[in-house]
Amino acid sequence: MKLVCTQSDLSTNLSLTSRAVPSRPTHPVLANVLLQADAETNQVSLTGFDLSLGIRTSLNAEVIQGGAIAIPAKLLNDITSRLSEGEITLEDESADSNTPSSEGLIVTLTSKSGRYQVRAMGGEEFPELPLIENTQATQLQATALIEGLRGSLFATSPDETKQVLTGVHLTVDQDSLEFAATDGHRLAVVQTTNENPDTGYEGKLEVTLPARTLRELERMLAHNSSQEELVALYFDQGQVVFEWQNQRLTSRTLEGPYPAYSMLIPRQFQRELTLDRKQFLSALERIAVLADQKNNIVKLSLDNAAQGITLSCESQDVGSAMESMAAQISGEDIDIAFNIKYLMEGIKALPSSEIQMQLNTNLTPVIFTPLGGLKMTYLAMPVQLRGV
Amino acid sequence: MKLVCTQSDLSTNLSLTSRAVPSRPTHPVLANVLLQADAETNQVSLTGFDLSLGIRTSLNAEVIQGGAIAIPAKLLNDITSRLSEGEITLEDESADSNTPSSEGLIVTLTSKSGRYQVRAMGGEEFPELPLIENTQATQLQATALIEGLRGSLFATSPDETKQVLTGVHLTVDQDSLEFAATDGHRLAVVQTTNENPDTGYEGKLEVTLPARTLRELERMLAHNSSQEELVALYFDQGQVVFEWQNQRLTSRTLEGPYPAYSMLIPRQFQRELTLDRKQFLSALERIAVLADQKNNIVKLSLDNAAQGITLSCESQDVGSAMESMAAQISGEDIDIAFNIKYLMEGIKALPSSEIQMQLNTNLTPVIFTPLGGLKMTYLAMPVQLRGV
Repeated sequence: MKLVCTQSDLSTNLSLTSRAVPSRPTHPVLANVLLQADAETNQVSLTGFDLSLGIRTSLNAEVIQGGAIAIPAKLLNDITSRLSEGEITLEDESADSNTPSSEGLIVTLTSKSGRYQVRAMGGEEFPELPLIENTQATQLQATALIEGLRGSLFATSPDETKQVLTGVHLTVDQDSLEFAATDGHRLAVVQTTNENPDTGYEGKLEVTLPARTLRELERMLAHNSSQEELVALYFDQGQVVFEWQNQRLTSRTLEGPYPAYSMLIPRQFQRELTLDRKQFLSALERIAVLADQKNNIVKLSLDNAAQGITLSCESQDVGSAMESMAAQISGEDIDIAFNIKYLMEGIKALPSSEIQMQLNTNLTPVIFTPLGGLKMTYLAMPVQLRGV
Repeated sequence: MKLVCTQSDLSTNLSLTSRAVPSRPTHPVLANVLLQADAETNQVSLTGFDLSLGIRTSLNAEVIQGGAIAIPAKLLNDITSRLSEGEITLEDESADSNTPSSEGLIVTLTSKSGRYQVRAMGGEEFPELPLIENTQATQLQATALIEGLRGSLFATSPDETKQVLTGVHLTVDQDSLEFAATDGHRLAVVQTTNENPDTGYEGKLEVTLPARTLRELERMLAHNSSQEELVALYFDQGQVVFEWQNQRLTSRTLEGPYPAYSMLIPRQFQRELTLDRKQFLSALERIAVLADQKNNIVKLSLDNAAQGITLSCESQDVGSAMESMAAQISGEDIDIAFNIKYLMEGIKALPSSEIQMQLNTNLTPVIFTPLGGLKMTYLAMPVQLRGV
């Protein structure tokens, strides 16, 4: 294999692909990036794969001799990113000409001022990225994907034993896309319209994907796609593939039934508030300084007569905090308590300057929604107040 | 005690002072910041002190009732920094009116929208900052101090058992300031002129100060002093005080004789090189990617005929790296090896675009100096090359 490319192309694509390279690989070959050079098309593809998440990107190069080789990802990325602009030549050779096996492969990187030789492995040792054939692609808008992921990813569970709750549940319908995530304590649902109705499926497509994969997808789309971009989604048993431009991301799916979350969302409410989101969030952030010291519980007291709410927390050993702010309130006065971290995360993710809070009692689910803009629902369960 | 001040004044000064508050205090009161309010001058001073480093700053306030109180530094800083601009009232009271001891002290912070109460301690429980009286101040220029610290701090030893080597040795003469630091493997010396010859001392003042203290001094001066600023240095047995504007930093000194470092610096050389600093540094940074994998050793080969040098490293299991660059060389060809981390740190700190490297053999000290600008000397010991 031998190719010539620019430092910036190689470095950009290596840093993208390296996100799928595990830092503690279960098998040595997975610490590599697979480089495949095609002499006919003058295309070079780079692949990182941890057996769950796979990222493949491609770049233009002058491919003098085609081939495939697996190169230590971190080393190659660290060297390439530190090189100055200009042309780079990559070439492989057997380290020991008597035993031209892949055991003794050496790849040589030559730049204007330097020459680097790194031990590599044969391309054939690198596992194949999942291929999905014979299914039609569903076209999704990049912007809808980004919005949906931003509004849901934060509510997934970080606890690996929680199975499907570690992922986002995606529902693709003829003209809509729905994202849902819950860790058992709160629930975030985002509904976006998908203006390209070519789903490729009859009826609905439902799939739960790992949060880790989707975070990478969001990152890649946010950095490397235009507003109008369409992303092709391929789905087959146990695997999905997202594909756009010269980028491809593959992911295993999370198996098992996802909770019937829409049944959890109340439809009628005895109390309704409209709040300024930023003001509410910064009051919460200050209260959190003291709530952090104790049990992370904040109490909200609704005062209909004053059309305002009071946020407070007590931490016997350390002190107490109290904040007041205006709110449009309908319904009777009530005290209700939340885990302040869940409350803050949800309020942070709501994409509007004013938000609505809807509730019935202080022991039933509470709903937060943006006023205008994206259709998002954040559900938080109150916690019981001692002695109230 | 009762006072009114602005959020920005209090927050800025708290974050400065908090740098001297230990995260794991040896005594509970040290987790506090001491707040002293003077009703006559309408000045409030804030003090953080870990018994080695002390920082005191002051701000203007409307002091309604004077007094002193020790308030948990992290809590107060976290709350204040999250408040929006505007006036803040601070007031103390006994938590239990029957026992007005400092045990039950509560400080109340009131802002436009909120009210925070935090358990505090009496000001009298906070240890006194070291006072140095009856000695005349030595006036130092802030810029000279900043330059000297930047050029020396990095070469101190992080190993607490190394005593004086964990500090920078400062020599104040009638018209010069010298900073020296060494960890036993390399040495950095910066000489600056001190244009204000009022040293306050007959003869030389020599003192070794902990790197941790001086890092804070550099930070504070870089952020909060003008070019022309004069810093007063007071020195007494075991303690120094730096004072400027409304800021004061106190530090214990490191006791014990400092190595006679100037004797280590060779004065005559068989070989001399002139190098482009940035080019040399980025070549080193690339080589370091591979050197990191092994023993951190880089080999420099001087080629007088070609007027160039080659940097290289070999790491049997991983690969090898080589970089070449132009250099003006006088003297015979030689191979010489260094710990690449020491080399990079020194080259990074040199403040000029071209640098000079001077050496005799590959086993004797090598000197790096900037061409023009600040007078700085960086000495690195070569390491032995196996099989050379």
